[in-house]
Amino acid sequence: MNVEIVAIGNELLLGETIDTNSAHVARRLAEIGARLTRVTVVGDDRARIRAAIEEARSRTRWVITMGGLGPTRDDVTRPVVAEVFGLPLEIQAELLAVLEERFRRFGYASMPPSNRGQAEVPRGARVIPNARGTAPGLIVADDESTVFVLPGVPAEMKGLLEEGVLPELLAAREDGAPVVRSRVIHTAGIGESALAERLDDALAGADPIEVAYLPHLGQVDVRLTLAGLPQDEADRRLDALASELIRRADPWCYGTDDRSLAGAIGEALVARGWTLAVAESMTAGELSAEVTSVAGSSAWFIGGVVAYANSAKEALLGVPSGTLERHGAVSEEACRAMTSGVRGALRADVGCAITGVAGPGGGSPEKPVGLVWIGVETPKGADFRKLDYPGDRAEVRRRATVSTMALLWRRLRGEGEAR
Amino acid sequence: MNVEIVAIGNELLLGETIDTNSAHVARRLAEIGARLTRVTVVGDDRARIRAAIEEARSRTRWVITMGGLGPTRDDVTRPVVAEVFGLPLEIQAELLAVLEERFRRFGYASMPPSNRGQAEVPRGARVIPNARGTAPGLIVADDESTVFVLPGVPAEMKGLLEEGVLPELLAAREDGAPVVRSRVIHTAGIGESALAERLDDALAGADPIEVAYLPHLGQVDVRLTLAGLPQDEADRRLDALASELIRRADPWCYGTDDRSLAGAIGEALVARGWTLAVAESMTAGELSAEVTSVAGSSAWFIGGVVAYANSAKEALLGVPSGTLERHGAVSEEACRAMTSGVRGALRADVGCAITGVAGPGGGSPEKPVGLVWIGVETPKGADFRKLDYPGDRAEVRRRATVSTMALLWRRLRGEGEAR
Repeated sequence: MNVEIVAIGNELLLGETIDTNSAHVARRLAEIGARLTRVTVVGDDRARIRAAIEEARSRTRWVITMGGLGPTRDDVTRPVVAEVFGLPLEIQAELLAVLEERFRRFGYASMPPSNRGQAEVPRGARVIPNARGTAPGLIVADDESTVFVLPGVPAEMKGLLEEGVLPELLAAREDGAPVVRSRVIHTAGIGESALAERLDDALAGADPIEVAYLPHLGQVDVRLTLAGLPQDEADRRLDALASELIRRADPWCYGTDDRSLAGAIGEALVARGWTLAVAESMTAGELSAEVTSVAGSSAWFIGGVVAYANSAKEALLGVPSGTLERHGAVSEEACRAMTSGVRGALRADVGCAITGVAGPGGGSPEKPVGLVWIGVETPKGADFRKLDYPGDRAEVRRRATVSTMALLWRRLRGEGEAR
Repeated sequence: MNVEIVAIGNELLLGETIDTNSAHVARRLAEIGARLTRVTVVGDDRARIRAAIEEARSRTRWVITMGGLGPTRDDVTRPVVAEVFGLPLEIQAELLAVLEERFRRFGYASMPPSNRGQAEVPRGARVIPNARGTAPGLIVADDESTVFVLPGVPAEMKGLLEEGVLPELLAAREDGAPVVRSRVIHTAGIGESALAERLDDALAGADPIEVAYLPHLGQVDVRLTLAGLPQDEADRRLDALASELIRRADPWCYGTDDRSLAGAIGEALVARGWTLAVAESMTAGELSAEVTSVAGSSAWFIGGVVAYANSAKEALLGVPSGTLERHGAVSEEACRAMTSGVRGALRADVGCAITGVAGPGGGSPEKPVGLVWIGVETPKGADFRKLDYPGDRAEVRRRATVSTMALLWRRLRGEGEAR
């Protein structure tokens, strides 16, 4: 089952937007056993969009377009797809009603006329309702091919992919046909080479399972892919290898597939009946935001303090001004005071803290950009680590956030002292 | 001067790697006045790579391939390009010597045989030396077209682009030749349609300047592109139109090109000599993290409180328990108490607050998922808004963060009451 993408938008060809959509679609297609065979990126130009869609249709039955569905005059995908199929565009009454209702809900007296075109669909096309935006998705098909027409806004595209595209592809797939299946094993707090040393023996006989290490800022995922077998057989083999790898990657492995590090931490806290509070300087809220990215976090997350200025560290966390004067805000002593301070201020069972130099300014020979202290304190003990990161401001902040979560996870896992 | 990219690699079509290379090349091409007209992504498959390169050559004189130059057997770009041009592959002696020397330097006794193929080039091809890796770049040309063959590793690709590709394109460009220039105008807090209504009159006579609206979760960028004129003339026309649009988009426009909303807010605070503190519930640190994403934010950002549980709102922000009991945590009253509470607790001139229901749980008929109260308080006044967002947890949080920054920006801009 081969699928092509036609991604549409001048912003992609000017480099203002990186095409992250295609990689997302690619992963989801692989997960249901379909295969992305080509991506074509073109600008907001009727002739070029038309050529790209027609070429894609000539090669494969399944085509996904993304982008060009907005209300303004550079958005031309809808009429071009209608042309390709030789169909007229027609206003769809229900769609118009949904759009008008949406604008009312946002407090508009009436819908701007430019949005009316978003209710036009090629005759006979099926609509994939879009709860996240004004541009609905469309499924336009004839005997030879099916074109899924999706908006380019990532959150909208992803929703319509799940709700309208993947179900259609799954329904069209034959039962028992060979598929591509995969498992992803997530780790945090261990480097790619160190992880590979632990796993390599188990991977020696993995063939025909393909193994890829996917490192990304402080985390390493291991992807196992198996193609060409029926689904049951593929899943059995993948599960067996995954179990062995998870055993070897303990305590750095926090889960597989859709499990997030925040989700793993939340479950471990709930299991122990503990609550969490965090104090951050350099990361300025990233740690709080990341641990609460999972639904239900209000069951165990009390709150956080972003103590950016020293005055905030003193006022909200009770860090002694003497500690800041003697050791500086980026020091083990300050990190310890922040960790216990936030536990006390918010009466949480577990406290975490981060203080460091994110750069580009603010570094010194003793405390260069990239120097970070992180800490975790639970009812059973505490763990503080000095880190030294490469990279720019955003990267240093991201790495510090992930490392603190990884340390918290290992601590909760009961093996906080392992290195 | 139109250029196409052919990006090669299974990892791109499996979604394991996001194609950031194409966006980088796109930006650099735009900067020298060339235009990227299409990107084609294909896997490591000889026939598909060949078809993609031949199609690109049929449309344009300039083609850049990226990827498939490694030492393993899935790397086939080099022989495919030789085939396309009908040229034999030959070992190039100097290249072989460079490669062998490189392996010696890295401590190998001899070069692995699999790397020998990297010294093979189509007869007559020019080599772009690669100081960062083993795969050199190649320039293969005939009367009709030039194909630049680059590796896919981003750091190597970027180096060879600067050293071998852009100089060749610049040399081929006539002096004073038409270029493609662009400007981006950033807005926040106004919808795409409402913005278009304000700008459309000014855009009616914009032709031949192309205009695109680029919405992304609470912000809308407007990109102006002008092709076909000499650079000075293009810049003059773009600047004139941009000024007019900025005037019409006031106070929603916060800057152009590389300006970020956080950067605009920081500059406005510095200009007024004010400091900022923020209180967040639902967004849990995203607002703090976002406003401090710009370097130098410690000059004006004091800190933040992530008051997730009601106990945190009382303990750190002094929100009266009576207010929370009577009106609930998601209410104008709670938002007001949080805003003034964080100003007081951190002794900041300006305070912001966000409280809402991010979902998926926690909603009720009176306070559904997506209901958010945001507020800004400065020494000159305050502004509170009730919002109602569609979307999932991450999206509701993101929209609330951007809306609060947009409200803060408008308030600082001195026109906080405009809608």
